[in-house]
Amino acid sequence: MEENITNNARKRFHEIIYEADTFAGKLFDLILIFLILISIAAVMLESVVSIQARYGTALEITEWVITIFFTLEYLGRIIAVKRPLKYILSVQGILDLLATLPAYIDLIFPGLHFLVSIRAVRLLRIFRILKLGQFVGASNQLTDALKKSRMKIIVFLFSVVVLCIILGTVMYIIEGAESGFTSIPVAVYWTIVTLTTVGFGDITPQTPFGQFVSMVIMILGYGIIAVPTGLVTAEFMSKKGEADTNTQVCPNCSADHHRDDALFCYHCGHGLER
Amino acid sequence: MEENITNNARKRFHEIIYEADTFAGKLFDLILIFLILISIAAVMLESVVSIQARYGTALEITEWVITIFFTLEYLGRIIAVKRPLKYILSVQGILDLLATLPAYIDLIFPGLHFLVSIRAVRLLRIFRILKLGQFVGASNQLTDALKKSRMKIIVFLFSVVVLCIILGTVMYIIEGAESGFTSIPVAVYWTIVTLTTVGFGDITPQTPFGQFVSMVIMILGYGIIAVPTGLVTAEFMSKKGEADTNTQVCPNCSADHHRDDALFCYHCGHGLER
Amino acid sequence: MEENITNNARKRFHEIIYEADTFAGKLFDLILIFLILISIAAVMLESVVSIQARYGTALEITEWVITIFFTLEYLGRIIAVKRPLKYILSVQGILDLLATLPAYIDLIFPGLHFLVSIRAVRLLRIFRILKLGQFVGASNQLTDALKKSRMKIIVFLFSVVVLCIILGTVMYIIEGAESGFTSIPVAVYWTIVTLTTVGFGDITPQTPFGQFVSMVIMILGYGIIAVPTGLVTAEFMSKKGEADTNTQVCPNCSADHHRDDALFCYHCGHGLER
Amino acid sequence: MEENITNNARKRFHEIIYEADTFAGKLFDLILIFLILISIAAVMLESVVSIQARYGTALEITEWVITIFFTLEYLGRIIAVKRPLKYILSVQGILDLLATLPAYIDLIFPGLHFLVSIRAVRLLRIFRILKLGQFVGASNQLTDALKKSRMKIIVFLFSVVVLCIILGTVMYIIEGAESGFTSIPVAVYWTIVTLTTVGFGDITPQTPFGQFVSMVIMILGYGIIAVPTGLVTAEFMSKKGEADTNTQVCPNCSADHHRDDALFCYHCGHGLER
Repeated sequence: MEENITNNARKRFHEIIYEADTFAGKLFDLILIFLILISIAAVMLESVVSIQARYGTALEITEWVITIFFTLEYLGRIIAVKRPLKYILSVQGILDLLATLPAYIDLIFPGLHFLVSIRAVRLLRIFRILKLGQFVGASNQLTDALKKSRMKIIVFLFSVVVLCIILGTVMYIIEGAESGFTSIPVAVYWTIVTLTTVGFGDITPQTPFGQFVSMVIMILGYGIIAVPTGLVTAEFMSKKGEADTNTQVCPNCSADHHRDDALFCYHCGHGLER
Repeated sequence: MEENITNNARKRFHEIIYEADTFAGKLFDLILIFLILISIAAVMLESVVSIQARYGTALEITEWVITIFFTLEYLGRIIAVKRPLKYILSVQGILDLLATLPAYIDLIFPGLHFLVSIRAVRLLRIFRILKLGQFVGASNQLTDALKKSRMKIIVFLFSVVVLCIILGTVMYIIEGAESGFTSIPVAVYWTIVTLTTVGFGDITPQTPFGQFVSMVIMILGYGIIAVPTGLVTAEFMSKKGEADTNTQVCPNCSADHHRDDALFCYHCGHGLER
Repeated sequence: MEENITNNARKRFHEIIYEADTFAGKLFDLILIFLILISIAAVMLESVVSIQARYGTALEITEWVITIFFTLEYLGRIIAVKRPLKYILSVQGILDLLATLPAYIDLIFPGLHFLVSIRAVRLLRIFRILKLGQFVGASNQLTDALKKSRMKIIVFLFSVVVLCIILGTVMYIIEGAESGFTSIPVAVYWTIVTLTTVGFGDITPQTPFGQFVSMVIMILGYGIIAVPTGLVTAEFMSKKGEADTNTQVCPNCSADHHRDDALFCYHCGHGLER
Repeated sequence: MEENITNNARKRFHEIIYEADTFAGKLFDLILIFLILISIAAVMLESVVSIQARYGTALEITEWVITIFFTLEYLGRIIAVKRPLKYILSVQGILDLLATLPAYIDLIFPGLHFLVSIRAVRLLRIFRILKLGQFVGASNQLTDALKKSRMKIIVFLFSVVVLCIILGTVMYIIEGAESGFTSIPVAVYWTIVTLTTVGFGDITPQTPFGQFVSMVIMILGYGIIAVPTGLVTAEFMSKKGEADTNTQVCPNCSADHHRDDALFCYHCGHGLER
């Protein structure tokens, strides 16, 4: 019977830590997000020299308190779940561990505690709390469409990089070190800055011919941005289209492309087998 | 009978102020837009030191005359409408109030009268006058498509911000204060400037490794701009796609959204009248 | 009979000047484009101080020779066409006149002869020569899609301008003249530079709060670029869809959405009336 | 029989060099890519002054070793293939030759050996090795869609260039040499930098009117970027849309591209077999 109580306690504990449907679960998640926001703000402010001078100790204490809380939460999650190893090796488990580690690492290798900002990834769980279903659906659709067009995007971006290496070399030969194109890596960096239409302006072509090639690069960058956009859009669209009609064929008149929820053929009125 | 006259006067008043179909109504709206344009121009020019020195008094008088006109118009709208409270609390009512307030606020808190430029929002009513129907239709379609893809856009932009916090911290660790990355907030600001392909160039990476990470950020920003575009395009298209199904309702079971070429109800198999 | 000869001569003349299907017509158009290119190059090079010093006279002579040729061509077009007034008042007629005028204007108002570059518009006729049909088709599709989504784009761009006026005023209040935001017009200019992701970097926010608002503007600009893209894409797509099937209904079985070149119903095999 | 052995050897040789399905073929391609990467890295690092001073000789030796390997590979390909001339004149053959030439050219014309970075093009063959089919499919789809919308993109980009020539001249007249618009070619360069939203910031408008025209150019560039995107997206989509018609051929009149749900030929009315 004692075991039963422990089981119930663990169940309740699991509910609070892992789920966001009950009041306690929601509250827990809200506190978590609040602490993440505070710890990120603390890390950011700590890097501002004037604030560090005045409030340094307070910020450090805040960070440690939150780190200890996160450590306890991480241990709690391992206890609350039935298969601890599965959780530890899951994406979420690794992210949770990464959120606790940086402060400890800083004790051994000082200067790396800014990695605490990895915690920001955990902020994405905010969508779990606010109107759960809709946001989860939206982000699933996003990741699905990206996953599907992944290979085309990789081929495209890789081709862009190859193009930038060649054009960068050309610009290095044309402009040379006087205009700031001190080496090929720098020239390739400049080409990527230009082709992606970022355009810092720290390095700019000075010779007429260099400016001409720059114009070609810019027009090119302006034109080929259409490619990834077209890819992802096409994928989004095809997802939509598929959801609406299916490949079912009417057994009587062979009409197809029925609505997903159709019970009868839209053409001959014969019943459809589901 | 006197009441009747008042009623007629109010009706006519309502027509002039609220509608844009009659000549008087159109004229009223045109004068309003002309005054808004002048008052915005006045506020803008007032902020230019050389113009302020010469024409300061004239500009101030213009502003006050227009403000008084707007105040009278606001009061007129409250009188002309049947349910004043509904108008006051509507989006348009609040915008109309905001358009009159700044000048008065300036009497109490000097220096804030530049908020007069909030009046610019009222310029959007220009679409009400010029070929009413078409523009209203166009802007309705725009806001509809944006509303529908709202949640996906929020998820996307939030993920971008989280990504920028992490990449910004990495850049801060790599570059440090010598290159202008004086603190993490500044580094995050730089990352957003770079990822959105704005690229001011006030801060630029100086170390080879920093430039390498910048290239990755730029390629990333160039690639993921496809996502919001794909989202909104898909929403625009699906609006169009709805045209393929029609608004016919089955006379037997009341199911709707039938295919355009449907002869029988997809839900109950009853014949559809064409 | 003499009239007949004149008529034939005029017909031949018309063929050469207006059409690009015969050899003489093509040659004439090619010479024209070649001269336009040379005159544009001449105007451009003339503006480069070092070249002007050395080759100034030669460039000026070139320009005058071409201008006289264009004047003769313009007069020729008026003579060759049956309804001269219609040509003079057409878009092409006005462009042709504009291409001849600048050099003459320069005699009266010196310093304006750089307007010769208006001639560049005539370069677009290059598409008439190279594989006529395909390019004309492509550019027709382009202008059609733009015309259809014109009103939505106007509403969108106007809203962007209004947004920039308001955000620009806010930035002016936050940053002030020390950071380069010397007046509201300048601040609005900066906001447009930032929202459209151009990002010159001549003016940049210096205060932390100004940088925060900048981030919001940039994220906004990165997000809403999706809107015009979505609009135009949707219009392109709907054009495609329409071109392929039509609204014809089979007189026998009432099936619709037939291919444009269909002679028989795809569903019952009954002949379609064309 | 000896000939038979030579034939077998050549077949095996062909398999290794040209194909990526067998283990030996994959290994060969992997070594090739590894060498290309090293040689590109070597060329890039050589251009960095500090590295060149220290490791110059080592980098030069590396480059020559790889060049000799590439030369042998090129000769090997000519021997292994049945129609050497066809390979030599194919796109791949020319690229392979270009990958070996630069180092030799450098012996005759020193200073041009940076053209070795043309080798980067060969990196694209990486897609042949990793999950062959999928990447080839993806890149075929990409190039197909680009090929189809090629003419529209050319018309669009050409129109953009014409627009930039005219707007650049206007900016030159407005701003003049004091603001950095020293000549029309420079002003056109600035206009392209601005319209494509690159925005280096090395040249910026200083006069109020110049800034106003800049705003128009920026808003324009922000708006018309929608056009190439719309074009490519529509092409991607229509590729997908083709799935709605199928490759069935009418047994009577050989018409194809029937609707997926067609029962009778749209051209001759003959029944289609399903």
